[in-house]
Amino acid sequence: MDATLRDRFDVEGQWALWREHTIRWAECDIYAHVNHAAYLTLFEDMRIEWWLGAGGTFAPDAPGPVVGSLEVKYHRPGHFRDGVLLTARTASFRRSSFVHQYAMWRDGLLCSARALCVVIDNATGRKAEITEPMRRLMADRDGAVAEV
Amino acid sequence: MDATLRDRFDVEGQWALWREHTIRWAECDIYAHVNHAAYLTLFEDMRIEWWLGAGGTFAPDAPGPVVGSLEVKYHRPGHFRDGVLLTARTASFRRSSFVHQYAMWRDGLLCSARALCVVIDNATGRKAEITEPMRRLMADRDGAVAEV
Amino acid sequence: MDATLRDRFDVEGQWALWREHTIRWAECDIYAHVNHAAYLTLFEDMRIEWWLGAGGTFAPDAPGPVVGSLEVKYHRPGHFRDGVLLTARTASFRRSSFVHQYAMWRDGLLCSARALCVVIDNATGRKAEITEPMRRLMADRDGAVAEV
Amino acid sequence: MDATLRDRFDVEGQWALWREHTIRWAECDIYAHVNHAAYLTLFEDMRIEWWLGAGGTFAPDAPGPVVGSLEVKYHRPGHFRDGVLLTARTASFRRSSFVHQYAMWRDGLLCSARALCVVIDNATGRKAEITEPMRRLMADRDGAVAEV
Repeated sequence: MDATLRDRFDVEGQWALWREHTIRWAECDIYAHVNHAAYLTLFEDMRIEWWLGAGGTFAPDAPGPVVGSLEVKYHRPGHFRDGVLLTARTASFRRSSFVHQYAMWRDGLLCSARALCVVIDNATGRKAEITEPMRRLMADRDGAVAEV
Repeated sequence: MDATLRDRFDVEGQWALWREHTIRWAECDIYAHVNHAAYLTLFEDMRIEWWLGAGGTFAPDAPGPVVGSLEVKYHRPGHFRDGVLLTARTASFRRSSFVHQYAMWRDGLLCSARALCVVIDNATGRKAEITEPMRRLMADRDGAVAEV
Repeated sequence: MDATLRDRFDVEGQWALWREHTIRWAECDIYAHVNHAAYLTLFEDMRIEWWLGAGGTFAPDAPGPVVGSLEVKYHRPGHFRDGVLLTARTASFRRSSFVHQYAMWRDGLLCSARALCVVIDNATGRKAEITEPMRRLMADRDGAVAEV
Repeated sequence: MDATLRDRFDVEGQWALWREHTIRWAECDIYAHVNHAAYLTLFEDMRIEWWLGAGGTFAPDAPGPVVGSLEVKYHRPGHFRDGVLLTARTASFRRSSFVHQYAMWRDGLLCSARALCVVIDNATGRKAEITEPMRRLMADRDGAVAEV
């Protein structure tokens, strides 16, 4: 992420992936705030981008990430038409699970989340090992801690 | 909650509020599982029922609960047409915030969540105190711990 | 539908299926109105109830209804916590398609829709014939016109 | 729209506004198709872009477009990760209403819709006249027919 983008959204820390987004009408509630669940669907988009960009696929017979648990902090509300930056990175990983971090930025942090994702083989329903190239990407590009 | 209902969904613990629900088509994703964000919208329904049932209102000039943070555990996936039980209770409260717990049940626990809610006056944007009758309800009916 | 229910929501015409619903927070937008797409998801629920109640199933290898076209009229806005009645009926049918009508009521009509549904075999992607018992139900209970 | 873009998505006709989109996980259903309501939320995004780009605003005390009726045709299903083109244009207008057309393209038409929008002053709830500059834009850029 270059300094201009970082400054524009007041981003902190290093991130592996980012994308600009304009808050949609459908993401807002009666209070004119971004609905608390809409953040999570935007973070889901980032998780999917991350997984595909890391060589993963989404198919009935391929391993894919399933969210096991989630922690979300709502720092300040987002509003309709806000130009925000979405970011994602891997914080840590084990044999068949990893922890992703997500954030939404506009003049600093609006919302941050942490998801424990388990890699499940959709054909068998069993845990699948994260491939070696994906583990390297997690460690080298994302700066994730190997907890194995 | 009577023993029949408790047995039917294999519910654990005491809950202040519950409601049966049939999983909707729109709540499921390509994997035919309940989408991770759909649980939170169902729990939002429970939060609203709780707040209204406890004497609260939703109005531009009245205090209302705003989710400050959220922890969610996805134990087992829900599926289309599953008959589930949604439950809610207050775990603890302070002057102007409270912790809610939510769960979805079907042969035991499918999903559980914990939300820190801050009571905000919508007219001023400032924290508002939880009323005395609402605090009593939290303590007496829900069994919530007063952390003040 | 008994006279009491009909009077309570000011319903017009004969309907095959109905269900009470309370408008959810997540169904409303910044204007505090029910979002125009949320009506369609509620009507989708009615289509599914209709299909299952008429002996249909939802499975990868079974015929199911696919919406081919849709006409919606937004008469008056619905609001958060409105108690509404959802209704559905078959207007007409052919060999492998049918027209459903849906409506949302509260002191008269809030929203009405008409959906052309094509019955598709999910395994083959080809049109499937509506079964004889389902056709009889459409004609006898719903009062649908056979256009074959 | 230049010839390359037009060819890439096999677009027909003249459009006033367009935007590329990648189908999201949250927009798909159990059949791995774009849910019928998700198209309408994407078209809503286009309506909003159109309105803002035409000098309109969204505010509690300003006139804004309200959907009065909708016609949708589902030609072929969209799928997860499909790269699609969304298009919008004004077909016709009167004093305080206009007809928008929307479409989603990928190797030709996936979904098309027609919305009758009424311009309502949010402060009073009454119809508001479309401004002269907006009418000119509808006629000149969009090629809309003035039905007044």
